[in-house]
Amino acid sequence: MYKKALKWINASPPRTLLLGFSFIIFLGAVLLRLPLSTVDREPLSFVDALFTATSATCVTGLVLFDTGSHFSTFGHWVILMLIQIGGIGFMTMATLFALILRRRISLKERLILQESLNQGSIEGLVRLVRKVILYALALETVGALLFSARFAIDMPLGQAIYHGVFHSISIFNNAGFDLSGDFSSFSSYSTDLFMNVVSMVLIILGGFGFIVLADLFDLRHKRKFSLHTKVVLTVSGALILIGTLIIFIFEFTNTKSIGGDNFGHKLLVALFQSVTTRSGGVTTVDISEFRQATQFFIIILMFIGASPGSTGGGIKTTTFAVLVGAVLAMIRGKEDVVLFRLRLAQERVYKAVTVTLFCIGIVMLGTMILATTEDASFLKILFEATSAFGTVGLSMGLTGDLTTAGKLTIIFLMFIGRLGPLTLTYALGPKAGRPLYRHAEGKIIIG
Amino acid sequence: MYKKALKWINASPPRTLLLGFSFIIFLGAVLLRLPLSTVDREPLSFVDALFTATSATCVTGLVLFDTGSHFSTFGHWVILMLIQIGGIGFMTMATLFALILRRRISLKERLILQESLNQGSIEGLVRLVRKVILYALALETVGALLFSARFAIDMPLGQAIYHGVFHSISIFNNAGFDLSGDFSSFSSYSTDLFMNVVSMVLIILGGFGFIVLADLFDLRHKRKFSLHTKVVLTVSGALILIGTLIIFIFEFTNTKSIGGDNFGHKLLVALFQSVTTRSGGVTTVDISEFRQATQFFIIILMFIGASPGSTGGGIKTTTFAVLVGAVLAMIRGKEDVVLFRLRLAQERVYKAVTVTLFCIGIVMLGTMILATTEDASFLKILFEATSAFGTVGLSMGLTGDLTTAGKLTIIFLMFIGRLGPLTLTYALGPKAGRPLYRHAEGKIIIG
Ligand SMILES: [K+]
Ligand SMILES: [K+]
Repeated sequence: MYKKALKWINASPPRTLLLGFSFIIFLGAVLLRLPLSTVDREPLSFVDALFTATSATCVTGLVLFDTGSHFSTFGHWVILMLIQIGGIGFMTMATLFALILRRRISLKERLILQESLNQGSIEGLVRLVRKVILYALALETVGALLFSARFAIDMPLGQAIYHGVFHSISIFNNAGFDLSGDFSSFSSYSTDLFMNVVSMVLIILGGFGFIVLADLFDLRHKRKFSLHTKVVLTVSGALILIGTLIIFIFEFTNTKSIGGDNFGHKLLVALFQSVTTRSGGVTTVDISEFRQATQFFIIILMFIGASPGSTGGGIKTTTFAVLVGAVLAMIRGKEDVVLFRLRLAQERVYKAVTVTLFCIGIVMLGTMILATTEDASFLKILFEATSAFGTVGLSMGLTGDLTTAGKLTIIFLMFIGRLGPLTLTYALGPKAGRPLYRHAEGKIIIG
Repeated sequence: MYKKALKWINASPPRTLLLGFSFIIFLGAVLLRLPLSTVDREPLSFVDALFTATSATCVTGLVLFDTGSHFSTFGHWVILMLIQIGGIGFMTMATLFALILRRRISLKERLILQESLNQGSIEGLVRLVRKVILYALALETVGALLFSARFAIDMPLGQAIYHGVFHSISIFNNAGFDLSGDFSSFSSYSTDLFMNVVSMVLIILGGFGFIVLADLFDLRHKRKFSLHTKVVLTVSGALILIGTLIIFIFEFTNTKSIGGDNFGHKLLVALFQSVTTRSGGVTTVDISEFRQATQFFIIILMFIGASPGSTGGGIKTTTFAVLVGAVLAMIRGKEDVVLFRLRLAQERVYKAVTVTLFCIGIVMLGTMILATTEDASFLKILFEATSAFGTVGLSMGLTGDLTTAGKLTIIFLMFIGRLGPLTLTYALGPKAGRPLYRHAEGKIIIG
């Protein structure tokens, strides 16, 4: 059975992923439509159920209804299961893909991998999947304990545990759903250092991806980090730092956001908002009150997103690193893109550039459609489209006003945003065989 | 002397181009600062003079002052000379670059080129430059005659010729400057079929680039168009058609733009606006009254722009064609990007994708800066930044309100928009020698 499943996945992994996600979303939508799922026992419209199921499975966090007050406990559990399957499931699949892709590169490399890590074999893969799930559950458990302890101060223990588990799973999976009520996200905890730190650590660890987590926590085998881990850590750190600084500076005097806070609180809010753009989706302030320049900068951060094989979205930190490396190489007049003194294969640079451009194209397309269907400022629309595509879940407030066509567009953006970059990278990988017939080469002038 | 000049250009053509353009712009700014240049004899501030000189030399057409009423005849001639040098000069240089780049590719190819077309030799190059200038002047002369004839109906003959010459040069060079007065551009001719057709033909021909013009008009040698010409003609045609349709449909009921016109006039205005996004910059309606969705679509069209080695800007039609080809290849699961049954070298696809991404980065950067320095809606800012970068010259009205920092940003965008794509393509070309030391190859996961 393992063998058969592996064979099918191996035949066309992206197909497996797309079908699997579609099935789960559809199932989720059906469950969320049950009167049982809402507090008032009024069933959602199918589009709204589909929207919510997509937002949960694609761990986005854009919501049409306040999750805490609109959905029943049953509804909450459906959403939580969708988040868990969507988040950890994707993490597992993406990690497998990376290994499958790597295996396809050369026979020699494959042999090395199989011998040293035993990851090419079926047992190796099963062990890997088990390990990914183990890591995720362990971190979620720690998060749930910490959150529950904090919530127990404000509410009865049973409810505190319920909230603790929900928020830990939601936040580790970068899902952005919350039970705070009134669409308030975590704004009542904006200056609560404990809540801030626990949430940020969960968002960041969830956004690192399994390979980096294994490199961080599984130090038995090696003392040095892999290039991948080094790049993820450096870029994530740099983005969080730059994001914090920009938000802090741009909003320093904006009394509608953090202008009235003291220095430390300003810094904390800026830091949290910078971290959450990595794909978290929970927020401690109203983003719509930020200045235009800050909002545009957040759009760029959301577009970059988290790291490969993680619970987060976007074009990924590594892709961004390659782009930066390519620009640096160009400025210096060098041919090779070098990161940490290691050269990247031209083919990988091409992939990074192509994936990025494709993603920009999708966001533009979504924005274009929303610009015709929605009646809102352009920046609000661009923000919403990027947030959906990057599966971030932050909003300047458009979600609640969406038309049906707008909802369908956002559903499409969340789905393609979650699965597109990985599928595309896979599709751009080396092909199994050369085509029998190739056209003659032609030349045109570029630029 | 020819030999020496050629050697210097060959050593680093982009340097020659950048220095040459900088020098001309600076000279232009100095001349435009003379009291002699304005009607009221009040000298411009240096930033304003630099802005105007850059806009003219980079054939953009964004204007701080109404060209017709603010500048004296002397001022007009300075602007016209800057347009002519900037437009035709760039056209010539870009054509030379394409040949130099082609020559660098392989010794074999170089020999073929030198033998068959004799373009590698100094005499060949001189002949080529002469031919480019000849073509441009011939088309400008025809345009001037037609315009003068039309203007003669409305004004005295002397003035009609003056206006005819100015507008023909401005429009063929896709410069977008006009003498209509009151920032009105060509809006008083919005339904004048003759003016529309002459202007559109000049914009389109100027935007084709020399290689295509030679292919079109110089049919002695061959009967079949080159791949380059086929791609330029097809993409330009498709973009004009799609642009016309989108503008026509989106604005059909918008009474602030064309909603009140009859069917034919609606179509004519839509067509003209679509053509002018190719980089023309003159307009027959107030773009700021368009709907958001239309404005965003125009931004995309302006970003694509005209064809290589032309008087127009943007990432170029051929670059766009390669992107479309790459997407199609990906969807079909093919490795080769094929246009007109000819395969493109992987290296050229990489170039197209990289140039595009770089250009998006520059526009984003410019937008980001303007979002902090200017107090205007985000779409207005994005429109202005893209228009400057694509050297289009259309505006939703921000130009007149720019702060000094904003003016400097737009100057930077116009300059890099005009010279960036070409310089970048050149920089991405095959390097003369391999580096002595290369780093070991590393691997990270993308997407
Ligand atoms: K999220
Ligand atoms: K122009």
